[in-house]
Amino acid sequence: MKSVDRPIGVFDSGFGGVSVFKAIRKALPRERLVYFGDTAHLPYGSKSPEAVRAFAAQIADYLIGEKGIKLLVVACNTASSFALGALQGRLKVPVVGVIEPGAEAALRATRNKVVGVIGTEGTVSSHAYRDALRRVDSSVQVHEQACPLFVPLVEEGFWNGEVTARVAARYLAPLRRTRCDTVILGCTHYPFLKRVVQKAVGGAVTLVDSGEATARRVREILDHMRLARKTGTGTGAFIVSDAPRRFARLARRFLGRPVGTVQVKRFS
Amino acid sequence: MKSVDRPIGVFDSGFGGVSVFKAIRKALPRERLVYFGDTAHLPYGSKSPEAVRAFAAQIADYLIGEKGIKLLVVACNTASSFALGALQGRLKVPVVGVIEPGAEAALRATRNKVVGVIGTEGTVSSHAYRDALRRVDSSVQVHEQACPLFVPLVEEGFWNGEVTARVAARYLAPLRRTRCDTVILGCTHYPFLKRVVQKAVGGAVTLVDSGEATARRVREILDHMRLARKTGTGTGAFIVSDAPRRFARLARRFLGRPVGTVQVKRFS
Repeated sequence: MKSVDRPIGVFDSGFGGVSVFKAIRKALPRERLVYFGDTAHLPYGSKSPEAVRAFAAQIADYLIGEKGIKLLVVACNTASSFALGALQGRLKVPVVGVIEPGAEAALRATRNKVVGVIGTEGTVSSHAYRDALRRVDSSVQVHEQACPLFVPLVEEGFWNGEVTARVAARYLAPLRRTRCDTVILGCTHYPFLKRVVQKAVGGAVTLVDSGEATARRVREILDHMRLARKTGTGTGAFIVSDAPRRFARLARRFLGRPVGTVQVKRFS
Repeated sequence: MKSVDRPIGVFDSGFGGVSVFKAIRKALPRERLVYFGDTAHLPYGSKSPEAVRAFAAQIADYLIGEKGIKLLVVACNTASSFALGALQGRLKVPVVGVIEPGAEAALRATRNKVVGVIGTEGTVSSHAYRDALRRVDSSVQVHEQACPLFVPLVEEGFWNGEVTARVAARYLAPLRRTRCDTVILGCTHYPFLKRVVQKAVGGAVTLVDSGEATARRVREILDHMRLARKTGTGTGAFIVSDAPRRFARLARRFLGRPVGTVQVKRFS
């Protein structure tokens, strides 16, 4: 297969990365995409760095060895926090995480240099966004807040309504007391709660979707390396490590259209 | 070590089994208990039967081979639904699940033979409680309801309050429309939500805690096999497959007291 025709791998702990998949598909409609959801181990947000690194390495090797991907997107904030450096050091294809693109988009958006970050326990306690923001601009003030119930609320379809609004109000009250004018949605599930989060932080705050920023980064890299596909129609394939029917049901809801046959690849 | 002095193994996907551990400790205060929380794979509720069976087999072999347990309690409804038969067929120690003791306690409690069951998606779609209830009394009417947000709500400390009450009202509305006079708390996390669930189903309904019923069953088996410890003070040790600090924090909240050092055993 010609290099440009090789697929892009998109890897997540489960369902949330579908929001990144969606953004990449929109930005790069000619590309072939292979999505891997590690549903046997989800959620990553409450797992240790060592465990997440081991899961990520196994999946990256599979996508490169078996699927011949030309670029790997780590479409999971926790895995990007914990495993990106290790993957970039070891793999022969470019590896793009969601943290740096999201951080850079936030720095372009903020006017007062006070930025909020919301994510899973893993992402927040890794301080990956804070560190990425400060590497670019050491004067930026960063306020981080874990929102552990957001992922199950999204997966249960509580995208709007009173329950999610109350949980959001509780989690985001500390951020409201800061002067932050920009908040990074530091978890791939959170774009589905954009409306509720916007209400809880106030209409004047800019929300940054890391998935959209990541899709732009992928396009830049492919253009730069002359690996972008110039003709043909894009495709999307889905592989999970467990429970394909549940994946198909949720991914369909997230994508707004059916995902076709979901393949299963178990590691033991 | 004398047979009676060997420990009892208590196995769960993570934290919830601590409610069963607590009940066993109360019923059998002289016993040595070893708790294993499979925190690398939690939650089991959304995993496939094959995956759960593989996780359970690995942990059972470890507890028997390395810890010399005299009896294994599968303190997890999903693992009891999916893996109990396989474990009982293969292991040389008695294996006690939470389903049958819970089902039998519900049959003793119900007057009108209409029983509700609440649990994870895995437990409910396996129909393990329904089948266990009907094996004893084929005339019983069973209504099952999955409550997937209850586990994250418990783990996030939302044990009372408006959010949990609203989620409970939403999930339990279909049960209220049945005539059930007894509801089985078919997930080891749910006893922590007893008050909220009681309010949502109405004060006249009897709630059955499978953990307490399981502890009684363990005592009966040990007495029958002359394996109960008659002297000495009980102890409790905790092992997890990932993230021991998070476990220690949550288990302390669940038990109402510190759990001591939490050991880590990773499988790869």
